[in-house]
Amino acid sequence: MSKQLAASPFRSREERNREREEKREAVLLAAVRLFNARGYHAASLDDVAASLGVSKPTIYHYLGNKEQVLVECVNRGLEMLRAAADDAMQAQGSGFDRLRAFLCRYAEINMDDFGRCVIRTSEEVLSMDSATRFRARKREIDAAVRDLIAQGMADGSIAPVDVRFASFALAGALNWPARWHDPDGPLAPEEIAERLVDVVMGGLTPRA
Amino acid sequence: MSKQLAASPFRSREERNREREEKREAVLLAAVRLFNARGYHAASLDDVAASLGVSKPTIYHYLGNKEQVLVECVNRGLEMLRAAADDAMQAQGSGFDRLRAFLCRYAEINMDDFGRCVIRTSEEVLSMDSATRFRARKREIDAAVRDLIAQGMADGSIAPVDVRFASFALAGALNWPARWHDPDGPLAPEEIAERLVDVVMGGLTPRA
Repeated sequence: MSKQLAASPFRSREERNREREEKREAVLLAAVRLFNARGYHAASLDDVAASLGVSKPTIYHYLGNKEQVLVECVNRGLEMLRAAADDAMQAQGSGFDRLRAFLCRYAEINMDDFGRCVIRTSEEVLSMDSATRFRARKREIDAAVRDLIAQGMADGSIAPVDVRFASFALAGALNWPARWHDPDGPLAPEEIAERLVDVVMGGLTPRA
Repeated sequence: MSKQLAASPFRSREERNREREEKREAVLLAAVRLFNARGYHAASLDDVAASLGVSKPTIYHYLGNKEQVLVECVNRGLEMLRAAADDAMQAQGSGFDRLRAFLCRYAEINMDDFGRCVIRTSEEVLSMDSATRFRARKREIDAAVRDLIAQGMADGSIAPVDVRFASFALAGALNWPARWHDPDGPLAPEEIAERLVDVVMGGLTPRA
């Protein structure tokens, strides 16, 4: 009986939902890559549609207008960062080790399609409401970095530093690859992330 | 006789040149501030003209079209960075001290109108030729940072680090204020620059 149902030319609700979800993902990925490659202003939903061989109304159907597509891309990146921060907060180990693990993941996400879009999106292109939410969610990530630095200072694994400026310096150093990293370059994002995190956590001052 | 000339209603060639230069500077400053505040795409030369109470053809007369204005703004910032790098290369002292002095200046320039514009300008908005020149001049600044790190490693004032990744980390940490620094905020750019440079050069690892 169930076999007969599977052979039916009518797709089940689950199949339809899955297919819809797959199409939505494909649209989102095509859009974020075009935004990253050309810049949001220069990228058009017509080009996104063309790259998938669909019509522009299909894009609207799955994701909405251009700003809604951008907001969805940015949210996806922010969710990845948020999940990495939650993992680090719940992990075992010294503040230094947990911060290091989080920062490596943070840098990797910033070299990934959606994380890159978070970094490359200026608030000016968003509506006031979206910009406010965007800023609030970025602040949460920043707060997690500061908490981890403070925890490391408390357990002695991190030197006494200015927490706010340390978080700015770390964020800047690890956001920067979103602008220069070439996905087709010789180094894997994981390797770039580790090397950057090591130099930024270790500093340049010689050890006695 | 010379007094009579000075009182003439006709301005001297020097006066005309100086006046022209002052007007050009005023246009450039109004433009860079608008580009930084709104983003290049959203800023129009009409608004730049309106902010100065002049007509758009006046802007064209002094600086050319919108891309030419942007290129001039970016060049101004790059010249400031280049001059700071030259000063550091010629200064006395250890590699660490010269790098530190350069990085403080670098961070300050990135919080200034023209330096901010260098950081906030994506190559995508420039013509192919301008983008190529922009990239080449940014590479020169990056090469100066690497030279200073290498010199510090050679004289023992800087720990053995991966020079390329150290320069990326430093640049990222010190470019970042161009995106978050509020010129009307409580901290002076010099103070922000020093604190950032200290944390990024000192690192987070406790000293034994």
